[in-house]
Amino acid sequence: MPANVSAEQVRIELGDRSYPIFIAENLIDQMSGWALPQSHAALIVTNTTVGALYAPALEVALRAHYAQVSVVTLADGEEHKTWASLNQIFDALLARGSDRKTVLYALGGGVVGDITGFAAACYMRGVPFVQVPTTLLAQVDSSVGGKTAINHPLGKNMIGAFYQPKLVVCDLTTLRTLPARELSAGLAEVIKYGPIADLEFLDWIEAHLPALRAHDPQALAHAVRRSCEIKAEVVGQDERESGLRAILNFGHTFGHAIEAGLGYGQWLHGEAVGCGMVMALHLSCELGLVQAAFVERCTRLIAAAGLPTQGPPLGVKRYLELMRLDKKAEAGEIRFVVIDGPGRAEVRPAPDALVAQVLERCCR
Amino acid sequence: MPANVSAEQVRIELGDRSYPIFIAENLIDQMSGWALPQSHAALIVTNTTVGALYAPALEVALRAHYAQVSVVTLADGEEHKTWASLNQIFDALLARGSDRKTVLYALGGGVVGDITGFAAACYMRGVPFVQVPTTLLAQVDSSVGGKTAINHPLGKNMIGAFYQPKLVVCDLTTLRTLPARELSAGLAEVIKYGPIADLEFLDWIEAHLPALRAHDPQALAHAVRRSCEIKAEVVGQDERESGLRAILNFGHTFGHAIEAGLGYGQWLHGEAVGCGMVMALHLSCELGLVQAAFVERCTRLIAAAGLPTQGPPLGVKRYLELMRLDKKAEAGEIRFVVIDGPGRAEVRPAPDALVAQVLERCCR
Repeated sequence: MPANVSAEQVRIELGDRSYPIFIAENLIDQMSGWALPQSHAALIVTNTTVGALYAPALEVALRAHYAQVSVVTLADGEEHKTWASLNQIFDALLARGSDRKTVLYALGGGVVGDITGFAAACYMRGVPFVQVPTTLLAQVDSSVGGKTAINHPLGKNMIGAFYQPKLVVCDLTTLRTLPARELSAGLAEVIKYGPIADLEFLDWIEAHLPALRAHDPQALAHAVRRSCEIKAEVVGQDERESGLRAILNFGHTFGHAIEAGLGYGQWLHGEAVGCGMVMALHLSCELGLVQAAFVERCTRLIAAAGLPTQGPPLGVKRYLELMRLDKKAEAGEIRFVVIDGPGRAEVRPAPDALVAQVLERCCR
Repeated sequence: MPANVSAEQVRIELGDRSYPIFIAENLIDQMSGWALPQSHAALIVTNTTVGALYAPALEVALRAHYAQVSVVTLADGEEHKTWASLNQIFDALLARGSDRKTVLYALGGGVVGDITGFAAACYMRGVPFVQVPTTLLAQVDSSVGGKTAINHPLGKNMIGAFYQPKLVVCDLTTLRTLPARELSAGLAEVIKYGPIADLEFLDWIEAHLPALRAHDPQALAHAVRRSCEIKAEVVGQDERESGLRAILNFGHTFGHAIEAGLGYGQWLHGEAVGCGMVMALHLSCELGLVQAAFVERCTRLIAAAGLPTQGPPLGVKRYLELMRLDKKAEAGEIRFVVIDGPGRAEVRPAPDALVAQVLERCCR
């Protein structure tokens, strides 16, 4: 892999599936000089919003490596994380006669990364791919660790694969064009790492929240690097989520129910996770695992990040129904990521009555 | 895995993904007493034809293991190896609130096995599955080795995954109801193992072809076992087809072009492979790798098995166009499995002009 890259580097250690994450400004422009996966052809997958801003630069960089470089542009938004978008990629690949060495480049946020990764996992039973995340959420979470998927009307990320990229390129420059709402959504996944794993990082986020929300490059660089480090450590121990990795889903059991219940694309994924963390914190408190003061502290931070802390009124019955389809559920029993003392998380079931209480308190 | 099974056993050795293939009569009825993957629920995937014959017996056997056993029935035929059928499985799983321990059972031929395996690979990023192949083709080839896929209008098996079953159950009793045309299609994949790997087996097939076509149980048992042994040896060395495994695609480059070119379901997969082997043998001869007498010998056997030896007149241009999308192709160069001396195969390109000659000779 690239020996001549001047950027902060975090490594995901997974034996012969290991790969680096590069974090710095202006990385896309430098990629022409790197050692990228070799092939005759590359396909950039992006969306209408991001493609207009960064696809031309990535295309130029990749032309130094590949005889054929094409772009496929998907519709933007979580509601397009579907089989139809996935098939748009397959159609593009087959129309170009793409072989099984063709390299896919995912240029965009979490939706583009997840769909592209899943397309790479399935096309001809697997082609190499590279993540070039352009949102904070994708840089700190979804582009790292090889979880790929599309949504099903009945549940989020239900159809997918564990499939690792060859490389993740976090070009911090792309965050400059990120709308405030998207930045806040990304902060939800940054904040997540505090309560589940690193209280020092939680302190740091609290202290630097204004800088982060103001797109301060140094603050963003640290947030991305530390988030990736924590994720790398967890994924390195449990790639396929047999145990530990599930803690990274803190806030996601409630959050996915919000996304599916409202219809994909109503709330951003990070918004649903922000609110879901508040719910999961209250549940942890009800279970006697964490003090009310810690719940309040985290809730204040989530609100200050510009995220919702009250869920939509879907009704307790509907929430429970949606959460029973969560991937952590077993034989109809929902399993929640709860905070088991500040900085430590675990996965466990909870009585429906307790969950109902939490939902009633946290929804309006 | 089952300790108390009285059946011939072939093992696929792939480290922690190893599994047994059981081969005997009346196995479905015995499964109630085996040690199967544990879970709360199982879903049998079958098709309209096979389901009516064997789903009730399998359901009874599985009820001894799982609190919830359901059946989803797909339309029968290669033309239904599509996203729509795959989604029928996902819908059934989600409608039942299936968790990620749910075990899928593929009861049917190659199409059912390939779709079910791919559904198992993708549902919640992977659930366990068991192959219960009920056609000769599936028992000797497609149910073994973890290749799963659906078709794309532009190319066969283009969307899929390498995903191994936990167990393969070849119940020879199910072959009794197999129509003659399907039996012949299966013989194509049996015959395949001769020229690429085992001339003694080729002798045996020639000697026992009448018995095989007459559904003789002992002859079928030997054909299934020896085919699985050869496949197990190849797959054990090269699970993801980085090299050696490609020889198992002997006849498939031409064959897939026939299937896609005529429209899926016109010819059975085995029929296309039978004819494709004749073409590949002629190509091997043109390349100076094998004698004309060997081509004639194999062609006679393929014809005697009830398989076509002349391809449909799609035109050389269309054949080449379709074959350039073959998964073995690289940078637009088609790579063929050729016989490099009787009992030995290799993968290599061939001049278009030579391929055109072969196609003109082998199509009418």
